[in-house]
Amino acid sequence: MGFKETKTVDQVLSEAIKYIKHVPRIIEVTISEALNKYIAEDVMARFDVPGFNRSAVDGYAVRSIDTFGASPTNPITLRVVGFMAVGDDPGKYSLNPGEAIEISTGAPLPVNADAVVMYEDTRRSGDYIEVLRPVPPMGNVSRRGEDVRANEVMYRRGMKILPWDLGVLASMGIYRIKVFSPRVAIISTGNELVEVTDVSSNGPPPGKVINSSRFVIEGLLKSLGCEPNYLGIVGDNEDEIAKTVSNALKDYDAVITTGGVSVGKVDYTIRAVSRLNPEYLNHGLSIRPGRPNSIAVVNGKPVFMLSGFPVAAATGFDVLVRPILLHMMGAIDDPKPVIKGVLTRRVSTPVNTKSFVRVRAYLGRDGRVYVEPLALTGSGILSTLVRGNGILVVPENREGFDEGDEVEVTLIRPLFMEGS
Amino acid sequence: MGFKETKTVDQVLSEAIKYIKHVPRIIEVTISEALNKYIAEDVMARFDVPGFNRSAVDGYAVRSIDTFGASPTNPITLRVVGFMAVGDDPGKYSLNPGEAIEISTGAPLPVNADAVVMYEDTRRSGDYIEVLRPVPPMGNVSRRGEDVRANEVMYRRGMKILPWDLGVLASMGIYRIKVFSPRVAIISTGNELVEVTDVSSNGPPPGKVINSSRFVIEGLLKSLGCEPNYLGIVGDNEDEIAKTVSNALKDYDAVITTGGVSVGKVDYTIRAVSRLNPEYLNHGLSIRPGRPNSIAVVNGKPVFMLSGFPVAAATGFDVLVRPILLHMMGAIDDPKPVIKGVLTRRVSTPVNTKSFVRVRAYLGRDGRVYVEPLALTGSGILSTLVRGNGILVVPENREGFDEGDEVEVTLIRPLFMEGS
Repeated sequence: MGFKETKTVDQVLSEAIKYIKHVPRIIEVTISEALNKYIAEDVMARFDVPGFNRSAVDGYAVRSIDTFGASPTNPITLRVVGFMAVGDDPGKYSLNPGEAIEISTGAPLPVNADAVVMYEDTRRSGDYIEVLRPVPPMGNVSRRGEDVRANEVMYRRGMKILPWDLGVLASMGIYRIKVFSPRVAIISTGNELVEVTDVSSNGPPPGKVINSSRFVIEGLLKSLGCEPNYLGIVGDNEDEIAKTVSNALKDYDAVITTGGVSVGKVDYTIRAVSRLNPEYLNHGLSIRPGRPNSIAVVNGKPVFMLSGFPVAAATGFDVLVRPILLHMMGAIDDPKPVIKGVLTRRVSTPVNTKSFVRVRAYLGRDGRVYVEPLALTGSGILSTLVRGNGILVVPENREGFDEGDEVEVTLIRPLFMEGS
Repeated sequence: MGFKETKTVDQVLSEAIKYIKHVPRIIEVTISEALNKYIAEDVMARFDVPGFNRSAVDGYAVRSIDTFGASPTNPITLRVVGFMAVGDDPGKYSLNPGEAIEISTGAPLPVNADAVVMYEDTRRSGDYIEVLRPVPPMGNVSRRGEDVRANEVMYRRGMKILPWDLGVLASMGIYRIKVFSPRVAIISTGNELVEVTDVSSNGPPPGKVINSSRFVIEGLLKSLGCEPNYLGIVGDNEDEIAKTVSNALKDYDAVITTGGVSVGKVDYTIRAVSRLNPEYLNHGLSIRPGRPNSIAVVNGKPVFMLSGFPVAAATGFDVLVRPILLHMMGAIDDPKPVIKGVLTRRVSTPVNTKSFVRVRAYLGRDGRVYVEPLALTGSGILSTLVRGNGILVVPENREGFDEGDEVEVTLIRPLFMEGS
């Protein structure tokens, strides 16, 4: 009984990835719908941004040559012949020698002007200004193409679209863009499961459990720019599971099941997926929680078989599903917020197992950060992800950390304050 | 000319917050729609989770008292009278002295059983097992209420709903939940602006600029669980802006404008909002980029007047809009990923100004992290947020950092590798 030999996450990932050939769905969306999606094409600029030389300050557009030699004791006088506002056509004025045009920040330089003198460096009287300081060519000018140059590749396939990217894309004249939008099927297995919508206010019937993993996985998939498709609960029945997974593989880019991945009597899902002639199948990982998490590759598509216990499933998602789906989109993972703190209690973990310990990190009254381990076991104890705010990872080659050790914690919520 | 005296961000925030009285819109959504929203109510558990004592291992449910004294040399024999599967009713069996029930992980304990002996600690022959080790009361049992206790307050108003929270809420039998969903109006001002959808493939007409800030702000608002409502472009006209902002204040929880916040000739928005009898108005901040960013409070609602330049507007959003909207939802900000690295070039910033320097942080071939400043000025240079991956904040009391200094950078994208 028990998993005789489990592989490390890195081993399984590098093996499984070799068999994944499927390119997930690509859709075209407007930039308003593209936030947090991964770009599915290289994006090249068609024109310069800005499209014209514009003033970077409020002042006077001039021919720089007219200002050479100017100083407070020897000012050069120019005649002001107009005002250039933001939004004006650059052809509104053409500058002759000895002339200046008053100009706002962001307004285009008039024809023949090649610099802007700031108000601060001038003295005005009537239609004339005295220039007190010379300005070099292109002085105080935001040059055409300074932000984006025509034909420059601004985005590579696989980049995640963040808020300012929407602005950059718009600046480039791009309103519709191709993004990855993998369709992922979620299949919950287990005779014990009932839907939250079917449960009375007294809770589920005796022996039954509300299907919560489904929602955790939906949330994790959405955070990854994927489209979750929940296919419902299947009982602990090998035939049913095999049929449901097999059908899902026709319609979706990836399949995630929960439950039926223990050993012995309850590995229904493992046996069901084995029947689908997978190119690759690995049962179990040397992690805790989440030892039963498994993966198969069928026709080039991944089938993730996660634990029926929600915390174990969430851990399986992070170590297995997330990197593989990112790989399928040619993307790399976001940086994670990490904090260092002093462990308040010893953490013991099994050897040769990468352990994910949920913790509560808080700022002590003494100004130091402390890390309190919340639960060493209990893969069903989802609430530790609410009461806690971080994950402490204990690598395979350690058996834990001692009280007082400085440890690094990935924060999933803000730091607590001591006593709160 | 220029902002004579600008206040620090902290000053302005603490002043403005005193005048904000408005509670933003609260809506009821299903948990499938609640991801990344902020909870608008305390949430209490109505029942225990799990709702029954269940086995934490595969093995045999027993009366613990029957196993006392068992050892490999002196095993205790029990009769196996049934099998308890996951999803079975706890009342399926009732245990008599000397009896055991085979049980799966997650299955409910039968009546009268108070512990589970793991397979590993038994020897089976036919309908009998020999117990080789005693098990204490509640040994290998996940107790009722272990995850969530009835009447416990699991969520406080203002908490952000993360993927696993969806699972916790479902476990608690909660499918519909009240969340904040502030409706925020976006008004773009500026005669130079054109919509991306109106621009040909050669770019905007001479002197015109595509309205990109709108999309940046939409994206930033969505990331904050708010609903952006874009009200279009208004020209540089004080009356028009005043009318549009005034109308927006009737319908929305907050208003964000861009443009018209410089000094002198182009402070249309400042003057327009001044006419609305604001309880509070501050023009300008001692930050760079983003000095023109301003805030007013009208009838208890915030009006954010951001720069017309997209990077300056994005900075204004981060320092001004984000904290105030979070405050209105009783929420605190997420932890941010931070990395330390060695500065490759001197960064000079103005005194008494908090500077936000866009940088490119990369892992050098020598294994060290390096931080390359990208642009010291150029608040219009949105592309530095694409080419770069981080922000270096230089506090008010410094005039920069030297080449070789170790600096802390907030990462907005993954770390680059040297040469990539």
